[in-house]
Amino acid sequence: MHLSELTHPNQLHGLSIYQLQQIARQLREKHLQTIAASGGHLGPGLGVVELTLALYQTLDLDRDKVTWDVGHQAYPHKLLTGRYARFHTLRQKDGVAGYLKRSESKFDHFGAGHASTSISSALGMALARDRKGETHKVVAVIGDGALTGGMALEAINHAGHLPKTNLLVVLNDNEMSISPNVGAIPRYLNKMRLSAPVQFISENLEEQFKQLPFVGESLAPELERVKESMKRLAVPKVGAVFEELGFTYMGPIDGHNLQELITTFQQAHKHTGPVLVHVVTTKGKGYEIAEKDQVGYHAQSPFNLATGKAAPSSKPKPPGYSKVFGDTLTKLAENNPKIIGITAAMATGTGLDILQKQLPEQYIDVGIAEQHAVTLAAGLACEGMRPVVTIYSTFLQRGFDQIVHDVCIQDLPVFFCIDRAGIVGADGPTHQGMYDIAYLRCIPNMVLMAPKDEAELQRMIVTGIDHTGPIALRYPRGNGYGAPLMEEGWEPLPIGKGEIIRNGDDVLLVGYGSMVYPSMQVAEILSEHGIEATVINARFAKPLDTELILPLAQSIGRVVTLEEGCLPGGFGSAIAEALLDADIAVPLTRIGIPDKLVDHATPEESKADLGLTPPQMADRILKLFSKQPLTVGV
Amino acid sequence: MHLSELTHPNQLHGLSIYQLQQIARQLREKHLQTIAASGGHLGPGLGVVELTLALYQTLDLDRDKVTWDVGHQAYPHKLLTGRYARFHTLRQKDGVAGYLKRSESKFDHFGAGHASTSISSALGMALARDRKGETHKVVAVIGDGALTGGMALEAINHAGHLPKTNLLVVLNDNEMSISPNVGAIPRYLNKMRLSAPVQFISENLEEQFKQLPFVGESLAPELERVKESMKRLAVPKVGAVFEELGFTYMGPIDGHNLQELITTFQQAHKHTGPVLVHVVTTKGKGYEIAEKDQVGYHAQSPFNLATGKAAPSSKPKPPGYSKVFGDTLTKLAENNPKIIGITAAMATGTGLDILQKQLPEQYIDVGIAEQHAVTLAAGLACEGMRPVVTIYSTFLQRGFDQIVHDVCIQDLPVFFCIDRAGIVGADGPTHQGMYDIAYLRCIPNMVLMAPKDEAELQRMIVTGIDHTGPIALRYPRGNGYGAPLMEEGWEPLPIGKGEIIRNGDDVLLVGYGSMVYPSMQVAEILSEHGIEATVINARFAKPLDTELILPLAQSIGRVVTLEEGCLPGGFGSAIAEALLDADIAVPLTRIGIPDKLVDHATPEESKADLGLTPPQMADRILKLFSKQPLTVGV
Repeated sequence: MHLSELTHPNQLHGLSIYQLQQIARQLREKHLQTIAASGGHLGPGLGVVELTLALYQTLDLDRDKVTWDVGHQAYPHKLLTGRYARFHTLRQKDGVAGYLKRSESKFDHFGAGHASTSISSALGMALARDRKGETHKVVAVIGDGALTGGMALEAINHAGHLPKTNLLVVLNDNEMSISPNVGAIPRYLNKMRLSAPVQFISENLEEQFKQLPFVGESLAPELERVKESMKRLAVPKVGAVFEELGFTYMGPIDGHNLQELITTFQQAHKHTGPVLVHVVTTKGKGYEIAEKDQVGYHAQSPFNLATGKAAPSSKPKPPGYSKVFGDTLTKLAENNPKIIGITAAMATGTGLDILQKQLPEQYIDVGIAEQHAVTLAAGLACEGMRPVVTIYSTFLQRGFDQIVHDVCIQDLPVFFCIDRAGIVGADGPTHQGMYDIAYLRCIPNMVLMAPKDEAELQRMIVTGIDHTGPIALRYPRGNGYGAPLMEEGWEPLPIGKGEIIRNGDDVLLVGYGSMVYPSMQVAEILSEHGIEATVINARFAKPLDTELILPLAQSIGRVVTLEEGCLPGGFGSAIAEALLDADIAVPLTRIGIPDKLVDHATPEESKADLGLTPPQMADRILKLFSKQPLTVGV
Repeated sequence: MHLSELTHPNQLHGLSIYQLQQIARQLREKHLQTIAASGGHLGPGLGVVELTLALYQTLDLDRDKVTWDVGHQAYPHKLLTGRYARFHTLRQKDGVAGYLKRSESKFDHFGAGHASTSISSALGMALARDRKGETHKVVAVIGDGALTGGMALEAINHAGHLPKTNLLVVLNDNEMSISPNVGAIPRYLNKMRLSAPVQFISENLEEQFKQLPFVGESLAPELERVKESMKRLAVPKVGAVFEELGFTYMGPIDGHNLQELITTFQQAHKHTGPVLVHVVTTKGKGYEIAEKDQVGYHAQSPFNLATGKAAPSSKPKPPGYSKVFGDTLTKLAENNPKIIGITAAMATGTGLDILQKQLPEQYIDVGIAEQHAVTLAAGLACEGMRPVVTIYSTFLQRGFDQIVHDVCIQDLPVFFCIDRAGIVGADGPTHQGMYDIAYLRCIPNMVLMAPKDEAELQRMIVTGIDHTGPIALRYPRGNGYGAPLMEEGWEPLPIGKGEIIRNGDDVLLVGYGSMVYPSMQVAEILSEHGIEATVINARFAKPLDTELILPLAQSIGRVVTLEEGCLPGGFGSAIAEALLDADIAVPLTRIGIPDKLVDHATPEESKADLGLTPPQMADRILKLFSKQPLTVGV
């Protein structure tokens, strides 16, 4: 049987180990070819090929449910659940999603793109099953990195308290998040990996004693003493932490040995209550280049399969925002020992790896733990440090309460650097950085800023470090505009002050962050149609530069806001509030991301779908004047 | 020395156990008298009297830092740090706050009102100390309930990985959150409590064996066998979970034995790296009535100290929103086994204890774990259940990412019942339910509703259960209006439809939730001044009833929105967006909570401060007409 003939995972039932090994090889081939051609998450999927096959051979997926944490480890799952033929469309518009999605397949039992959700969701399914009197299996597969996320630990605490609720947690332990894991839990797992696997030991002390040859009646008092002293000895058994928390622990298991996996899963299914199977896998397994550079090959742009090298770019690009951020913060940190860069397991993605290499003492990776990252920063700020919390927009959602309660209510100088703000492209709806303006703008004491380009990013980093209260800086995924960067001598910007970057009498365009350059492009198109725009680079969404914006709004008489964020409660909403509060009755058009989910596609495709290309936006504004539709080439 | 003479906690240094016992007695007296007179958290503070005294005798609080989790256990701390004389003003306007507040005292090293923040903030302070080359002590005091919160576990994972960072975590284990704790971690702690305290046991197996009398050369082979089998036995030492996670564990300690506490803290301070001292306390200690009813006396309204009975209310009040909620949900659940009520350790506060008593199989308490509560609900919803997640507005902030990622992106029918939405009174800024409209309104697929009174609350509960996607219902703290309640026969409301409840031509008042009745009062006052208002009960903040509101806005020509939520991004902001999107240029006045923190006071006092009493609001509207200030009696 070839992988391409598998249309239902139950077809794996009854296959021999040899046949499964063939399928494993085909899964790796297809996986590698696809990612090499179109990019995507490489290492995680390669590591769980055997885990997935073994698990699915022991499940009936017409009844049983599996939740895969994060979802980027679920490519073998996708290939085994009817998506082989479409798999070449991975992460492309209208193609197979890069994460799990309930609407994509009935086998995607729970959607996921963020970490640490699998045990909670699986436990919910298990409790529903029990209440309905059903008996199918529910399984969560979680990585060791995701296990350090607070929600996963909350779920362990809950599940471990329910001895009658059958739930299998498969711990996919590859010693990595994107970067090597940090924390006491990963270290504990590592210790277990290094010890001999001990799966089925008797819990009965007395019984074992009685079987010893020298134990007779005459030794009974000694026996009691031995038993007592034994009870007090520090001999934690493998998996003791999970056992103490109510789980039956099985492992560690070689995650690339199909027979061992299948046997263990079969045994696990027989247990009552929560079971944790500890599977040790190698990220990137089967592709030597990826095995050797697990950080570099966590996810990849298109690359040459033979060499592992990225496909050559058509032309050199300006540096990305993350790189400029990392370089600039590191330069500032060299002269300011109070600066501490904090990441939640995202050193490479955020550019904080530059700080890590140069000034490791001023760098903290807390693991996948955004909540802790924020409150740790608040503690650092109490003591006079300048914590810089660098988290993607979508993941900072995890720390929302901490931003309110631990930072803003106390008015502490924590600097939030929010990468991937706006449309993120192929990662899709779970990763869009759409909401940060809205969810941060409602918090007292917070300052929100966004740069028009990478040079302004540098100045805003200085501004954030200089500020004495909570402040957040959002910037987009991807490359800058090639704006000339400064090596030093940056001055902080005045808080709450924007700038006029173009003058015109017909319409006021107020752009925020990544929409400032497009606003200028819109103004150029409008000008070709005889409409002259004033363009403001707002710089701050909070506090707004009402001194600058309101008089211009009043005199020009028509305002358009442009932002790469959700429209409800966003930047345009702030302008609407300001206009109405000031009793300025002028028409306002808010351009941004409408109130709906944005699917995976290239950022350019998403923006075109949302009407956010400069020609589309210009067209919309022209219609306001002419009330006539215009034809626009996108 | 009397407690009243203590102005600095370092004055405790050198006091004898007897003297400390005297202070302990005085602390309890003052604590009890104050809470009996003015209300507040009773049980938590009584439980930590000795813990606080012993800890402070071993610290130099001019240098050392202590973070107290949640803060409601910190009343003895407040009495020992210069606030004795003002303590009778507890939780009153301009008086001593009920939680910790950095602006109130230099000894409140970290503000807290929410749970599980203390270890993260303390670790931040400890890391700052080390980077500055300082050597003072940093201590976090956390309850066993708060320890089950994900952020606390994230912090344990991080701290346990830092063997050189001195940090003392004091676990105040009283077996309770507000209700008895649930989960595997509390059960584990309980198991330790029941075992003999074993603090300093040898880690060396071989040594202990050699000391046994029957071990001679002839038994050497047997010894090897015993040792091997021992290694595989499940004999975890007390505290093994914490030890495995990198902490030095000490305990369990009797939390009311001053000498034992002092000795243990002194020993703990000598250790390098993270140390956890497990202190067993009794909530309500020293006040028998509270010891016997730990749930009932967690926090109290004013009461008679001799009898424990609440002070008689001046007149009977209508039932509170929480009670109506609990009764109604329970009634619905009786006929719908799919309904599952979920609380995060807040059964009594939310009224979900009614469901718990009547239908325990349809009730889940996950402990202090709001994130897990939301995603567990998502899992339940996947399997056709009707999860009702009942969390206070301020605590739901903890589950924000889960609401976005696990519920709304997947469009799952999870019903959020948001108690304590709006001004909460004496609990102050950490507890104000101000932000929920703003932080939920930005999420696609979400429906937001709020009832005008407790009868409409009933209909909205039916509406939420009936709805097929994510939906949230916010309602205020406190009593209803005495609106007649229905026993059965409720019909769901149409989603996104409001109602006109008064007609008038001069101004359109759009009230949301708890501001609908006040809107009517405002209309009455306006009418006395010759201005006739149309009043709309909006019912839904999302989707807005634009069909109803917009034509009236246009025809009447002046709109005022009234909400008990923050103005940035709130309900009024939604109306502003709708008006401007529809190109309706009418003046809009948004009345709500301005963009600042709201301190503790009675709700009435807070509302008066914020200009939210009906006469104040009417005055503000009248000024719009007359442009002349009017005198208003509040």
